[in-house]
Amino acid sequence: MEMGKTRVLAAASYEPRVPRFLHGTGKGWVSAEYSMLPRATEVRTPREVQQGRPSGRTQEIQRLIGRSLRAVTALDKLGEVTIWVDCDVLQADGGTRTASITAGYIALALAVRKLRERELLLDDPLVDHVAAVSAGLVDGEALLDLCYEEDARAEVDFNVVMTGSGTLVEIQGTAEGQPFSRVQLDQMVDLAEKGIGELVEIQRRALA
Amino acid sequence: MEMGKTRVLAAASYEPRVPRFLHGTGKGWVSAEYSMLPRATEVRTPREVQQGRPSGRTQEIQRLIGRSLRAVTALDKLGEVTIWVDCDVLQADGGTRTASITAGYIALALAVRKLRERELLLDDPLVDHVAAVSAGLVDGEALLDLCYEEDARAEVDFNVVMTGSGTLVEIQGTAEGQPFSRVQLDQMVDLAEKGIGELVEIQRRALA
Amino acid sequence: MEMGKTRVLAAASYEPRVPRFLHGTGKGWVSAEYSMLPRATEVRTPREVQQGRPSGRTQEIQRLIGRSLRAVTALDKLGEVTIWVDCDVLQADGGTRTASITAGYIALALAVRKLRERELLLDDPLVDHVAAVSAGLVDGEALLDLCYEEDARAEVDFNVVMTGSGTLVEIQGTAEGQPFSRVQLDQMVDLAEKGIGELVEIQRRALA
Amino acid sequence: MEMGKTRVLAAASYEPRVPRFLHGTGKGWVSAEYSMLPRATEVRTPREVQQGRPSGRTQEIQRLIGRSLRAVTALDKLGEVTIWVDCDVLQADGGTRTASITAGYIALALAVRKLRERELLLDDPLVDHVAAVSAGLVDGEALLDLCYEEDARAEVDFNVVMTGSGTLVEIQGTAEGQPFSRVQLDQMVDLAEKGIGELVEIQRRALA
Amino acid sequence: MEMGKTRVLAAASYEPRVPRFLHGTGKGWVSAEYSMLPRATEVRTPREVQQGRPSGRTQEIQRLIGRSLRAVTALDKLGEVTIWVDCDVLQADGGTRTASITAGYIALALAVRKLRERELLLDDPLVDHVAAVSAGLVDGEALLDLCYEEDARAEVDFNVVMTGSGTLVEIQGTAEGQPFSRVQLDQMVDLAEKGIGELVEIQRRALA
Amino acid sequence: MEMGKTRVLAAASYEPRVPRFLHGTGKGWVSAEYSMLPRATEVRTPREVQQGRPSGRTQEIQRLIGRSLRAVTALDKLGEVTIWVDCDVLQADGGTRTASITAGYIALALAVRKLRERELLLDDPLVDHVAAVSAGLVDGEALLDLCYEEDARAEVDFNVVMTGSGTLVEIQGTAEGQPFSRVQLDQMVDLAEKGIGELVEIQRRALA
Repeated sequence: MEMGKTRVLAAASYEPRVPRFLHGTGKGWVSAEYSMLPRATEVRTPREVQQGRPSGRTQEIQRLIGRSLRAVTALDKLGEVTIWVDCDVLQADGGTRTASITAGYIALALAVRKLRERELLLDDPLVDHVAAVSAGLVDGEALLDLCYEEDARAEVDFNVVMTGSGTLVEIQGTAEGQPFSRVQLDQMVDLAEKGIGELVEIQRRALA
Repeated sequence: MEMGKTRVLAAASYEPRVPRFLHGTGKGWVSAEYSMLPRATEVRTPREVQQGRPSGRTQEIQRLIGRSLRAVTALDKLGEVTIWVDCDVLQADGGTRTASITAGYIALALAVRKLRERELLLDDPLVDHVAAVSAGLVDGEALLDLCYEEDARAEVDFNVVMTGSGTLVEIQGTAEGQPFSRVQLDQMVDLAEKGIGELVEIQRRALA
Repeated sequence: MEMGKTRVLAAASYEPRVPRFLHGTGKGWVSAEYSMLPRATEVRTPREVQQGRPSGRTQEIQRLIGRSLRAVTALDKLGEVTIWVDCDVLQADGGTRTASITAGYIALALAVRKLRERELLLDDPLVDHVAAVSAGLVDGEALLDLCYEEDARAEVDFNVVMTGSGTLVEIQGTAEGQPFSRVQLDQMVDLAEKGIGELVEIQRRALA
Repeated sequence: MEMGKTRVLAAASYEPRVPRFLHGTGKGWVSAEYSMLPRATEVRTPREVQQGRPSGRTQEIQRLIGRSLRAVTALDKLGEVTIWVDCDVLQADGGTRTASITAGYIALALAVRKLRERELLLDDPLVDHVAAVSAGLVDGEALLDLCYEEDARAEVDFNVVMTGSGTLVEIQGTAEGQPFSRVQLDQMVDLAEKGIGELVEIQRRALA
Repeated sequence: MEMGKTRVLAAASYEPRVPRFLHGTGKGWVSAEYSMLPRATEVRTPREVQQGRPSGRTQEIQRLIGRSLRAVTALDKLGEVTIWVDCDVLQADGGTRTASITAGYIALALAVRKLRERELLLDDPLVDHVAAVSAGLVDGEALLDLCYEEDARAEVDFNVVMTGSGTLVEIQGTAEGQPFSRVQLDQMVDLAEKGIGELVEIQRRALA
Repeated sequence: MEMGKTRVLAAASYEPRVPRFLHGTGKGWVSAEYSMLPRATEVRTPREVQQGRPSGRTQEIQRLIGRSLRAVTALDKLGEVTIWVDCDVLQADGGTRTASITAGYIALALAVRKLRERELLLDDPLVDHVAAVSAGLVDGEALLDLCYEEDARAEVDFNVVMTGSGTLVEIQGTAEGQPFSRVQLDQMVDLAEKGIGELVEIQRRALA
């Protein structure tokens, strides 16, 4: 998936096992992993495997992607299987976590389709679409889908995850410099809502 | 600090050095660390040192506390020093991350006062209060400051960080089960605003 | 438990499993963990989780606490369960390892009492009290229960663990500077014996 | 670069520093890193960052790629700079290490060209081309550039690295099942020589 | 085993288990580990346990020793047992990996003999001898079994592993400086073949 | 050094640097490391490098050896250099930590002699001999220098470190089963004193 100059490669994999806390519950799991190639960024970023562990930022993003995808999946319809969604950023220009959610959903939906064709899955566990977008206040102006250069200048940084039917799954807003008002909160959610609507439309076309 | 049955011990420490990316900038840093004692929880939680690294959850919380405290600190007035804020949870009954922010601010303010008395700091770097509260939708009802048992049942989980003057520093809302509407988002922020106002009052009295 | 300015929070937890080497033996285990909050010390000590593992000092102390508590526990009367004793130092002013043993015994005894009330344990596995004290030679003089400032100046450093009936469980004596004579060894053990007698009395009152 | 179904993304990055053992020598360094995306393989491979370190296989390959590229680089003409060559396998169907060398050379040559254009490099440090190919004995027959299915069946597995002028940089031959004779060694090197000649031709066209 | 000033202590151990991928196959495994004492080298080398993991070089050598020993072992005659071969270098003066293979074979053969005496093994799983030698081009001249000082000056570095019947198990040739020609490749293999013949003779006498 | 069937290889190495806490003090340091080869024991023990860190037991032993050697070294006469003493156990049959101290002293004394010959050291920093011995109560009887089989049966386990002039450097006594009396403590120290006297005699002859 490409959004601006950001390119994410998403892939879903099937594993006939669940994490320990789900043993014997009949429920499945959707787990996400996220990584950036070292030269996805303009200046090379050292690989996290060299530090011996995923960074705090990577773990935070992985948990966000996983939560978002599980929010539209009926885990009890999966049975005791795990679907892994890998989001690897080949090129990064802002919004890699939100692009990963939007792309991850498509990979998940294609995997579900394949599993149903092979009759490894009887019911469709996906109850809705899910997509995400970043927004921010730059020089007092609300902007959607910030590129790296805008993101670095943003006073407030928003990530919004919504379903295809327009309900909220996750909202994260952080003041990098100046705190923000409730009016600005509303502007940003308005903007995000519009952007996500368009992304869900793109997902629908991609899956058709 | 005690909030309900949750007890957090916050301590601020002074170190006359800054992280590498601030060398030579004249700016200081506020860094937070968070941990729970193994028996803070009803059932013993293994220590993270045994796994060899802070969990993703711990890192996410540490980053949140640090960001929140920096949002009300004029880093250029600190000079090239770091203030470490340690938040150790002695007893946990929900809302440990928000209690850590509220208690961490008091520790930070007391440390600033002491540093000014010793003339290690000339100007007051604190530009405002900061406090935080958790909120959630439980059985469709918006509740403030959830205890563990309510938190486990909540459909939507909110953490809101605000300044003493009522602007937003951070907002995080996550649908654990059902996605939520914009009306519910507004209800939750209303509730949080009210709660944070009271906490800032408590901070004022504690610092007086 | 407070000894001078040293404050240790001890907690015992029950786990219905034993380490692998005890599977099928019918015996239980008592395991101890020890940690200091970063600001237990006058100058902040970095958390060990940041280094990725307990330090050599921490591991040595944990092993000592565990051995001492097991010395007064009939493991075959526990059945195949583990009792975890967590000793967390909130404030450190010398003698944290010996205070942890003395406090850990109280936590263990209270846990045993509760397990017997709940009929999870039929017989009392505790065969005696156990308590510990530090001693040292400072400027040629034998002192009991050294505070941090004395400990730093001590030529010889002793930790003695004894039962309620006055037999020795563990004795560790280390010459930090000058080696010591057998006469001095005897003086130090005399002193420790007296101190431990008083601590056992305190334990009895706390458990009454 | 694509070779059969194997796809490798190679990127070269410039860093104005050298490893410690080269400080003050006036020489530069070429360092390579190698990784596979988890779904590069037919069945998902867990990320090495989850195990906390690069596997033995990954380290072996990284060292091979680095050595091969340095064999055609006059390090004293680089000055004290490091060129990082990252080889990330997007899709794996055999021969990923040899494809990484061949692709890595192109990335290195393009980087050198760019650095010379920007006058960060005065002389051309590249003294020759370098490329690599895998070969193997499958059912007694010598084959070039084995795909995964052939590789799994191969009795003998060869990797040969040669320069554009036909001299050998590295030869690695491993009997997976049956040991091999010197006649078979000769056949395999003949075959590799021919294949590498073609790859160097492809490199020339790509760089033209 | 001593080769020149290089001294390797090899020991084989029996474990009645196999790695997971062999469960239920009826086949056994031969696994090798390699390590150098810190003062095996003229200048002390820090222990790898301090870095938290075997270095890339150590892992590469361990894999090579294991592969070489398995090449002459009929794994299906072992049954589901693992034989561990530990090669510890007490003194290092070049050729430690090849000396480890040659010594490791003797340890393996002695272990097999003992297991057959104790009737833990019915058939002899060893189908041939295996031994290894290093060779190199130093100042244009082909040399066998390089000592450390020669090795450091070598333009090309070869490790050859052959069976008692003269077939090749592994060949690794690396140009450290100047690439090498096929004529030089042939010279080096000739030399290695002769050296390995003598080593196999020494193994026969040691085992007689 | 061989004591019974226990064999320890001790080596001392010189490094012209000190740990950070000694920078600028003019004092040196003596640091010890300890390891067992995997087959030093009757049943193979996995290497600690595979677990990623030295075990608690290894760290405890390393600290003991280092402390014991420093107790007879005038660190201010060393200058800012470190002497590393490596104790590697080739064969283990009880008492490996005490044998390491006794052997480590010889290695340290030989290193000091060599450094003085090379005029890297002006004064002799060694103020006395140091040696160590294990003792224990087995079936109620006090025994010296326990072998593995006795050690496993011992009720009380003692390690005593003394100087050549008969003063105590370290005493560690642990009740593995039954606690012990002060009479038994005296018996054990008597026994150790006698044994250490003989070991110091052996050291004198070895260094003559």
